[in-house]
Amino acid sequence: MSEPLPDTLIAPVVRAALAEDLGRAGDVTSQACVPAEARLRAVFASRQAGVISGLACARLAILELDPTADFKAVVEDGAQAGAGAKLAWVDANARALLGAERVALNLMGRLSGIATLTRVYVDAVEGTGARIVDTRKTTPGLRALEKYAVRCGGGVNHRFGLDDAILIKDNHIAACGSVAEAVRLARAAAGHLMKVEVEIDSLDQLEDALKHRPDVVMLDNFNPDDLAEAVRRTAGRAALEASGGVNLQTVRGIAEAGVDVISVGALTHSASVLDIGLDAA
Amino acid sequence: MSEPLPDTLIAPVVRAALAEDLGRAGDVTSQACVPAEARLRAVFASRQAGVISGLACARLAILELDPTADFKAVVEDGAQAGAGAKLAWVDANARALLGAERVALNLMGRLSGIATLTRVYVDAVEGTGARIVDTRKTTPGLRALEKYAVRCGGGVNHRFGLDDAILIKDNHIAACGSVAEAVRLARAAAGHLMKVEVEIDSLDQLEDALKHRPDVVMLDNFNPDDLAEAVRRTAGRAALEASGGVNLQTVRGIAEAGVDVISVGALTHSASVLDIGLDAA
Amino acid sequence: MSEPLPDTLIAPVVRAALAEDLGRAGDVTSQACVPAEARLRAVFASRQAGVISGLACARLAILELDPTADFKAVVEDGAQAGAGAKLAWVDANARALLGAERVALNLMGRLSGIATLTRVYVDAVEGTGARIVDTRKTTPGLRALEKYAVRCGGGVNHRFGLDDAILIKDNHIAACGSVAEAVRLARAAAGHLMKVEVEIDSLDQLEDALKHRPDVVMLDNFNPDDLAEAVRRTAGRAALEASGGVNLQTVRGIAEAGVDVISVGALTHSASVLDIGLDAA
Amino acid sequence: MSEPLPDTLIAPVVRAALAEDLGRAGDVTSQACVPAEARLRAVFASRQAGVISGLACARLAILELDPTADFKAVVEDGAQAGAGAKLAWVDANARALLGAERVALNLMGRLSGIATLTRVYVDAVEGTGARIVDTRKTTPGLRALEKYAVRCGGGVNHRFGLDDAILIKDNHIAACGSVAEAVRLARAAAGHLMKVEVEIDSLDQLEDALKHRPDVVMLDNFNPDDLAEAVRRTAGRAALEASGGVNLQTVRGIAEAGVDVISVGALTHSASVLDIGLDAA
Amino acid sequence: MSEPLPDTLIAPVVRAALAEDLGRAGDVTSQACVPAEARLRAVFASRQAGVISGLACARLAILELDPTADFKAVVEDGAQAGAGAKLAWVDANARALLGAERVALNLMGRLSGIATLTRVYVDAVEGTGARIVDTRKTTPGLRALEKYAVRCGGGVNHRFGLDDAILIKDNHIAACGSVAEAVRLARAAAGHLMKVEVEIDSLDQLEDALKHRPDVVMLDNFNPDDLAEAVRRTAGRAALEASGGVNLQTVRGIAEAGVDVISVGALTHSASVLDIGLDAA
Amino acid sequence: MSEPLPDTLIAPVVRAALAEDLGRAGDVTSQACVPAEARLRAVFASRQAGVISGLACARLAILELDPTADFKAVVEDGAQAGAGAKLAWVDANARALLGAERVALNLMGRLSGIATLTRVYVDAVEGTGARIVDTRKTTPGLRALEKYAVRCGGGVNHRFGLDDAILIKDNHIAACGSVAEAVRLARAAAGHLMKVEVEIDSLDQLEDALKHRPDVVMLDNFNPDDLAEAVRRTAGRAALEASGGVNLQTVRGIAEAGVDVISVGALTHSASVLDIGLDAA
Repeated sequence: MSEPLPDTLIAPVVRAALAEDLGRAGDVTSQACVPAEARLRAVFASRQAGVISGLACARLAILELDPTADFKAVVEDGAQAGAGAKLAWVDANARALLGAERVALNLMGRLSGIATLTRVYVDAVEGTGARIVDTRKTTPGLRALEKYAVRCGGGVNHRFGLDDAILIKDNHIAACGSVAEAVRLARAAAGHLMKVEVEIDSLDQLEDALKHRPDVVMLDNFNPDDLAEAVRRTAGRAALEASGGVNLQTVRGIAEAGVDVISVGALTHSASVLDIGLDAA
Repeated sequence: MSEPLPDTLIAPVVRAALAEDLGRAGDVTSQACVPAEARLRAVFASRQAGVISGLACARLAILELDPTADFKAVVEDGAQAGAGAKLAWVDANARALLGAERVALNLMGRLSGIATLTRVYVDAVEGTGARIVDTRKTTPGLRALEKYAVRCGGGVNHRFGLDDAILIKDNHIAACGSVAEAVRLARAAAGHLMKVEVEIDSLDQLEDALKHRPDVVMLDNFNPDDLAEAVRRTAGRAALEASGGVNLQTVRGIAEAGVDVISVGALTHSASVLDIGLDAA
Repeated sequence: MSEPLPDTLIAPVVRAALAEDLGRAGDVTSQACVPAEARLRAVFASRQAGVISGLACARLAILELDPTADFKAVVEDGAQAGAGAKLAWVDANARALLGAERVALNLMGRLSGIATLTRVYVDAVEGTGARIVDTRKTTPGLRALEKYAVRCGGGVNHRFGLDDAILIKDNHIAACGSVAEAVRLARAAAGHLMKVEVEIDSLDQLEDALKHRPDVVMLDNFNPDDLAEAVRRTAGRAALEASGGVNLQTVRGIAEAGVDVISVGALTHSASVLDIGLDAA
Repeated sequence: MSEPLPDTLIAPVVRAALAEDLGRAGDVTSQACVPAEARLRAVFASRQAGVISGLACARLAILELDPTADFKAVVEDGAQAGAGAKLAWVDANARALLGAERVALNLMGRLSGIATLTRVYVDAVEGTGARIVDTRKTTPGLRALEKYAVRCGGGVNHRFGLDDAILIKDNHIAACGSVAEAVRLARAAAGHLMKVEVEIDSLDQLEDALKHRPDVVMLDNFNPDDLAEAVRRTAGRAALEASGGVNLQTVRGIAEAGVDVISVGALTHSASVLDIGLDAA
Repeated sequence: MSEPLPDTLIAPVVRAALAEDLGRAGDVTSQACVPAEARLRAVFASRQAGVISGLACARLAILELDPTADFKAVVEDGAQAGAGAKLAWVDANARALLGAERVALNLMGRLSGIATLTRVYVDAVEGTGARIVDTRKTTPGLRALEKYAVRCGGGVNHRFGLDDAILIKDNHIAACGSVAEAVRLARAAAGHLMKVEVEIDSLDQLEDALKHRPDVVMLDNFNPDDLAEAVRRTAGRAALEASGGVNLQTVRGIAEAGVDVISVGALTHSASVLDIGLDAA
Repeated sequence: MSEPLPDTLIAPVVRAALAEDLGRAGDVTSQACVPAEARLRAVFASRQAGVISGLACARLAILELDPTADFKAVVEDGAQAGAGAKLAWVDANARALLGAERVALNLMGRLSGIATLTRVYVDAVEGTGARIVDTRKTTPGLRALEKYAVRCGGGVNHRFGLDDAILIKDNHIAACGSVAEAVRLARAAAGHLMKVEVEIDSLDQLEDALKHRPDVVMLDNFNPDDLAEAVRRTAGRAALEASGGVNLQTVRGIAEAGVDVISVGALTHSASVLDIGLDAA
């Protein structure tokens, strides 16, 4: 069960989404067809099995349009829901609920889609000791929420931005002349709470990469045999991350090679939304 | 070829994405490993075949970090690119380019993914006269850009928000007592530049729906035979939109039933990103 | 009676207005002269007869400074108020009420002024079937509110921005070579929920304009005879909008010519504020 | 000639206005009908005689959409323009210019309307020594610009908000028990750069009001005889401001009574826009 | 006792500070170690003697993360607190309280530091009639709050920005040719509620400065003898402000020279924070 | 020499600071006294010896008001400047330069003050191997800039917010029951790029704290002997941070005890501004 984000981090996203959808005249259809004082009781329900994430988005969207709305979650973020499972009951002004519906569903569907796909990967490596991590391939503006969804699915977060950890890639190595020199420079620049990771694309680079003791070595596009060999050679001197070419066919083999973490861009960049609906009750 | 959005609509999204990625210290890796004055020449290249969308996002992201950068697009948004196709050359301060890279790729990859999937649907209905349209199932904060990507892929836009057209759904009908009454109220409320669409889920509702002359009737989850029957009965009194259960297996049959537009939520809610990379040149 | 805008669309305008008025030290006069805990009971009253619009602005402004304030509207937006009519009672912290007073009155006065002027035009064409519509000649930042005020006065809204309908004017026609070609291009670009309007300035252009079936033809600066002739010739093939040279002397004649809508820029660009005051009770 | 505001104060208003008008898809008409690379040369021209204000708004709006546009003002803000006078030439990308046109005209028309009306009042009191000042009855969000427009018309600004001067009104006096006590408290609270003004509504209050030496006494709704008497009695102990019941019929008489400043709410709350157009050249 | 700022001026600063501290994942430590529903009762206590300012910042920070929190201030802003004094009790969700703690303390500590230092200066000149005022040497983004803190310490505010009073300095004088001409131009430009101050750096300039009757003359870096001489010569024709070289050794002597106000940049630019802590209770 | 922050992180702070200072009318003094087209050449000079930080703030402030200004830095951030040292030449529109001056000086003075104080601490521990680090006791809104200033002074950054590293304090330990359990939970929650630090306040807690291998142990308010003992016992199993009671008298002794980092809240919460001025040249 993932620990919830504070509402204060979610509310600005929800408000911007409502502004985007309500535009310059609000929900003109409900204004035309639904009495101003009508109330609506409805239930958020999952049309597919999946892992739920983003209930707070739905709650905040509805409360933004009707501060008196009653929103009762049936499950918590991180819960595995079956097809048809009821997720939350809501009783609200009808226009407010219909006006917030799409925003609520768009956010909850997207986050639950990410959580669901993450869970599939996490389950696929169960028992191996490997952890599934995300990448920075997130939707602009939604990184905090999408990384939260990964946690809801049992995954772990890679760095949150360019500023909270050092990750040395090929262009950095090229600029430094060698892997070892890049790690040395990074180590010197890093504060005592910042980790240093370096990416290599062949076993040949491994010893050089380890010379100045990075916290993590990323093994990019290694096959399982090379991964296992890297694990053996590293012998605990650094954590090892496998990346590249990871899919549901390959992930178990990668995990069994003994790496510590496996990063999967698809978690955030290619998850389908989970089909969630709002049904009048 | 879709007409470009003004930069002024794109720039705030790009700036917010950079702020999200640069965090409170900027790109600490490049600061540690790349000389401040180094320049980098690189090329954006598509790793997969697809329809390109979002080149302006990449350009603006890089210029935001290096106003002197030189960005030369090789193709235009809407172009069909083959795997390996070069999309744009860039010559910029190395730290700036590395700092903007992920934002540029995240936006361009997502928009191109949408454009590519849209194009697949558009091609699938070629010659039928049906148009492929999107929905409001877009990423919060990115609606303007994602709807632009749909246009890049040859699709057409449904309404942009709750405020620019009337779309009567089941809850509205329930509140009004009948389909006909809902349309009548909507018609009365709509200005001379606002269209009225009504959603029905069975043929039985069709005549009632047409009574007060909506601009469009949405036929939700109709099978092709019922769609064809609806087309026959409507006889041009309104445009017809098919929605629900649309996928690449079904879309041609739906189109051939004679509807005017087919709305596909998957265009924006479930497109995979197009794999685009930035290669040092 | 116009349907209210959601508070979420109004609150940012109100907050910005308060920030503008409170500046960097707040209401220094009330801080100096009014005890911190004093309460004030007062009534918003109209000093002139008119149509009220914007009560929610007053309510939100006061609640922003005193969340415990009690605000009771006596009338609803859209109501015709006589000179001296009481509009709303408020009981609030005195400093908060005095600090919010000007913002409340500025917004309510402006919107009520627009509603009042709109009502005058709407009454002037009563029985003719013509509808009075606004334009985009609104105050920057207040379009959603000012268009709402037009609805409060019984008017109907023209498009909300450059993006929700196509309106072809002389420069567009010049770029396309002919009226007909411009409409043809617009038609092809427009989605199924976007209307197309074209402006012409002489009867000679009418047939050409109608060729590709626009939804609306705007007849710019036509005299009543030419308007009537246009109505006759169009014969229902498009809605007709009269614009230009519309004032209270001419509007009835224009309406009687049979056009569908009459657009009046003055509704928003030249309405005087309605004189509303706040009186201690 | 009024001194211009820094662009940095104007640009956010212009950008917000463009965002409001361009919405979620930009200028769809120009996208449909005008080639992307077409340029347009045009001239801003005044259709009525008036005092110009807000040329920078037009310039910034156009440059925001086309940074390469060439904008050449023919006159300066504060200039008296005749009907038909050319105000500024512009050569820009056609879509950009058409997309910015309404924002430019809305702002320039509104500000010029205020400047023009201000000038009429200023001219009406010429030679009397009285100065025409504005009030806080401005459009929410546009106070800085509207007060600038008053300066363009030869007027002088009253306080800019609740925070930059003390203005004691009836409710403050009621809370303090007496006019004199209110002024005394205000004086004690005011820093050495903050002025204190007190409003009275009868001659009886004058001596009491002057007791603790306010900088200004506002004489609310005094007739000219009482104004003259107040001038006589005050004998230079404070500046005197006439307010209330000021219109073009009464303003000269008020000025001749000898007051220092005359505040006119109508300058900002009820000025008609100046009719300015953009003509292709 | 200073009059409180409206929450509406403080809340945006608090929200921005929380966003800055919570980043993209919130308080990960509390999420890991503290149960979601745990509550914490704690007390804000001053570790040093000082003047308290900013209790509302603490309250708003905690309420932003837990709207149900109970916050009870023991003292009011402006109170002199001894070392160990309890300032406010709070009972809140434990994660929320720990997440808001640093923001609350940073703001309250900084503002209380300013209030405390101000109080020291104010006490140092007690009985002389001179008032201690701040400058514009404030922290960017916090001017309203820091100037409020000065008021809490018994100080008075100088102007709030470049726009609410005229302050003529050497570069302005150089541009005008003479002190007298600068004052004359300023006087002509100033509205009836805007004061004019002019800075001089020698007695020689005094008569010239007074010629066009500024409201205040700033005597920059005058020694006490020259200050006294300036007071004598000015004879009440303007208020006099001493600035430059003011510290706790010199301030009493400066005050005794008879000036009206003494401006002290150190109040805001060099105050140490007051050490305030939050202790579990 | 510290690596510069991207302008894109600094510009919003600068723009907000200018907006705060320019208020609703801009620099009214310069508008009154300085011709609109006048130019001014001036030099930023340090009135005290110190370490410079924030030149980009000055440059951006001036360019915001005059995009054609010429700004030439003489030194780079991180440079040690003597009293009187020239820091940067600027040639700009005079009104723009005077309007930006205070914002430029406020930011540069504050950041240079932090850099200077940091340098003093860094020099005090030279040769010991200990690094000086900051805390989260920064000015709300300026954390990124103030932490940058610490780097300019040769210091190293602690975590940037609550989200980029885990720091377990007494309240977390209390909630978990023991130090060891708190570290175990944190370790389990932390991703592979997030470090875990735990604070203890006595030697007794050390072994318990080290049990689940935190990256860093913070020794709060330890005397030098206990610090040395902690270093001996830890024997490299974790990095050690000394905090509390650090001042210029104690810091060398603390460093010589062998800790890795010493955190000093005073760097950001109590640095005096460095006195920097702008002199006409």
